Amino acid sequence: MSAARNLLLLSSSRLHGHGYLEHARHQLDELFQAKNVKTVLFVPYALRDHDKYTATVRDALQPWGYAVEGLHTQPDPAEALRKAQAIFVGGGNTFVLLKQLYELQLVELIRELVLKHGLIYVGSSAGTNVATRSIHTTNDMPVQQPPSFEALALVSFNINPHYLETAADTQHKGETRDERIEEFIAYHSRPVLGLREGTSLRVQGNLVTLLGDRNAKLFKADGSAVEYAPHADLSFLLES
Amino acid sequence: MSAARNLLLLSSSRLHGHGYLEHARHQLDELFQAKNVKTVLFVPYALRDHDKYTATVRDALQPWGYAVEGLHTQPDPAEALRKAQAIFVGGGNTFVLLKQLYELQLVELIRELVLKHGLIYVGSSAGTNVATRSIHTTNDMPVQQPPSFEALALVSFNINPHYLETAADTQHKGETRDERIEEFIAYHSRPVLGLREGTSLRVQGNLVTLLGDRNAKLFKADGSAVEYAPHADLSFLLES
Repeated sequence: MSAARNLLLLSSSRLHGHGYLEHARHQLDELFQAKNVKTVLFVPYALRDHDKYTATVRDALQPWGYAVEGLHTQPDPAEALRKAQAIFVGGGNTFVLLKQLYELQLVELIRELVLKHGLIYVGSSAGTNVATRSIHTTNDMPVQQPPSFEALALVSFNINPHYLETAADTQHKGETRDERIEEFIAYHSRPVLGLREGTSLRVQGNLVTLLGDRNAKLFKADGSAVEYAPHADLSFLLES
Repeated sequence: MSAARNLLLLSSSRLHGHGYLEHARHQLDELFQAKNVKTVLFVPYALRDHDKYTATVRDALQPWGYAVEGLHTQPDPAEALRKAQAIFVGGGNTFVLLKQLYELQLVELIRELVLKHGLIYVGSSAGTNVATRSIHTTNDMPVQQPPSFEALALVSFNINPHYLETAADTQHKGETRDERIEEFIAYHSRPVLGLREGTSLRVQGNLVTLLGDRNAKLFKADGSAVEYAPHADLSFLLES
């Protein structure tokens, strides 16, 4: 449990019909304005071109009043994190992102800054995966091998971002998303929150709330599943 | 290079409109009958219920004249592999399968038996992934963590089984299959063969042939891609 925790975990940074991060603007404004955040430290490691990725995020956030700095441009990333008010960990490849966080020895530091010192953490897609207990429930291809699948563990459960049901009429024989998640649970007996695009999870201390205008699907440790509506209180997940 | 190599790597064991392995029956018959195979040693580790999985494979192969034994029932798996004429490594979760092969210390043994002693290797889906150089190009969720992503390396390139193009009209914002594969290539500069369901790769010594009635899509190390028609000679891939 952590009273300092202040997270916004987005399923995705893009939503059909919206610009980059546009669907989450109101959520970001609420989060940043409450703490008078002026500058967001962006963690670009999930994509290959860190400069270009940082520019994309800057182009989205600057017009809304937030300056954006890329963590990759900081001479001392640990020091930059300690001084930051808020970080945004962008999506891309979860394996690549977590590998880089381990190589730069930032996993423990970010965890401590967020859980003990109230560093605001915004994650999207891969950035949401690494915020959870482990990356076992990512959808990404394992193009790089991190030293561990254990992640920042800012929350004690797992999330599946970009969650969607596989279309019933498919002729494709690969596993469905639900089958993959159920397989994780069979091995680990831990819950997984399927977070549909356009939704996000707000974590304030020990209060967890579903945001957005679609349901989330919780795959429970006992193998059953249940849908939760927008604004549902999911704080009980922190005890899993 | 290996003159002894005798592989059949299926994209999938199920194809829409066909029974289990039915679409590959002719290919299996040709392979097994040429070496007078009577019994197939089945490697069930990619799924959780090894007995049930072995029964599924037995129900398919026994009517065609092949006895099936499960590797998990053998008191000495290494000895069983040394005595086997042919193994079939079934699909399921690639991470789970490779982890188990490492834990049982079977990776090097299978590699040696196949490449030096001509043990017939049939793989499907996850069983095809682990036959290649690494599992970096699997579609599966990383529900377990193997000690390495490096695999049996029976061939020197990577395969993406169940390959399919993402539908152009999708509103989903997760990465497309092509984007994921291109990301692997950007990091590794190695080719990936996208093997569509219903197709397979036959490897006889240093001769590689595409089987089935659909094209395969080769993602080249230079970032370009090219389609190959059924019966194409892909032997050049062994030099990648």
